[in-house]
Amino acid sequence: MGVSDGLTVPFALAAGLSGASAPSSLVLTAGLAEVAAGAISMGLGGYLATQSEADHYKREMKREQEEIITVPDTEAAEIGEIMSQYGLEPHVYGPVIDGLRRNPQAWLDFMMRFELGLEKPDPKRALQSAFTIALSYVIGGLVPLLPYMFISTAQNAMLTSVGVTLAALLFFGYIKGRFTGNRPFISAVQTAIIGALASAAAYGMAKAVQAR
Amino acid sequence: MGVSDGLTVPFALAAGLSGASAPSSLVLTAGLAEVAAGAISMGLGGYLATQSEADHYKREMKREQEEIITVPDTEAAEIGEIMSQYGLEPHVYGPVIDGLRRNPQAWLDFMMRFELGLEKPDPKRALQSAFTIALSYVIGGLVPLLPYMFISTAQNAMLTSVGVTLAALLFFGYIKGRFTGNRPFISAVQTAIIGALASAAAYGMAKAVQAR
Repeated sequence: MGVSDGLTVPFALAAGLSGASAPSSLVLTAGLAEVAAGAISMGLGGYLATQSEADHYKREMKREQEEIITVPDTEAAEIGEIMSQYGLEPHVYGPVIDGLRRNPQAWLDFMMRFELGLEKPDPKRALQSAFTIALSYVIGGLVPLLPYMFISTAQNAMLTSVGVTLAALLFFGYIKGRFTGNRPFISAVQTAIIGALASAAAYGMAKAVQAR
Repeated sequence: MGVSDGLTVPFALAAGLSGASAPSSLVLTAGLAEVAAGAISMGLGGYLATQSEADHYKREMKREQEEIITVPDTEAAEIGEIMSQYGLEPHVYGPVIDGLRRNPQAWLDFMMRFELGLEKPDPKRALQSAFTIALSYVIGGLVPLLPYMFISTAQNAMLTSVGVTLAALLFFGYIKGRFTGNRPFISAVQTAIIGALASAAAYGMAKAVQAR
């Protein structure tokens, strides 16, 4: 996800500015500033989101734990409700309720997973995911900006950037499709189309602002 | 999430470009181009991600359904494995297995939820979440850019932008904290800090590129 946003947004911004006849050096300044800001905002934002999920889990677990102690019959009845959603009769799930009541820790785990549908969060995941998002954004963002480093006329750099980025979007979309088990070719085309639409919008926006 | 990225990235980009002594009109061009590109990239990216989750669910359900038909004993044993994770004995969960085997649809639902931990995706959610992300990014992005529309010296506009955006980040962080059940003041401060770090990075990056 970081890679495709990183490819798309700096690319679209650079294309938009080139369309507004800004020099390569300024396009590069804006592009690299965007990459730095985007990587930090999304990386740290992702970190906070994972942290906040972990806090949510802890809070819900505490609440559930208290309920098991203070209103065990209500909680036991909730097991029954869950089971009867699957067409099971009380005489079938009764022993399950009794079994869980004898083992409060398992009962708590059961409620977290089956009543609330919450997975135990992995503490290492927060930092890891923050780092992955930020790094992906940087790597993705550098691809469309490279041509502006070497070609001083922004309009010419833009053509190279379009080619390089389109290839990268198709390649990355294909990989993403393979990895998530979706049809790789469709995923490649979709990713490239988003990139094209975003840059068309940025280009049009830049032209419109300059024309005022 | 869209709002805080929308507030942070265009704000940081505008601050960075102002630091590189670009005129207000160019800062605005870059900022609005970024907002257009970001809204489309993140909105459509979000749409595709939700779609791809829904496809994943359908594929897993098909696989599970086939397994229930072709290897019912293996699948039934998996119910036992899930139950024994919660300290339940075979004589306790045996009737549950039998009950589910008599009702293949409930059995399938049970496996999707309890073996794979997958929730039934809501088809309306994909479009809705795409639209929400894009709109949030636009609204968030316009806040830091407004001062550049009215104040022609970018450096002066930047000061106003810093004030407005900081207030917006604190306010939005507070609201987000309340909404997600986390401590609102901490959430406000965290959101503002991410904004500050991202703009410092963008500012430093822009200065560094200009200094070459």
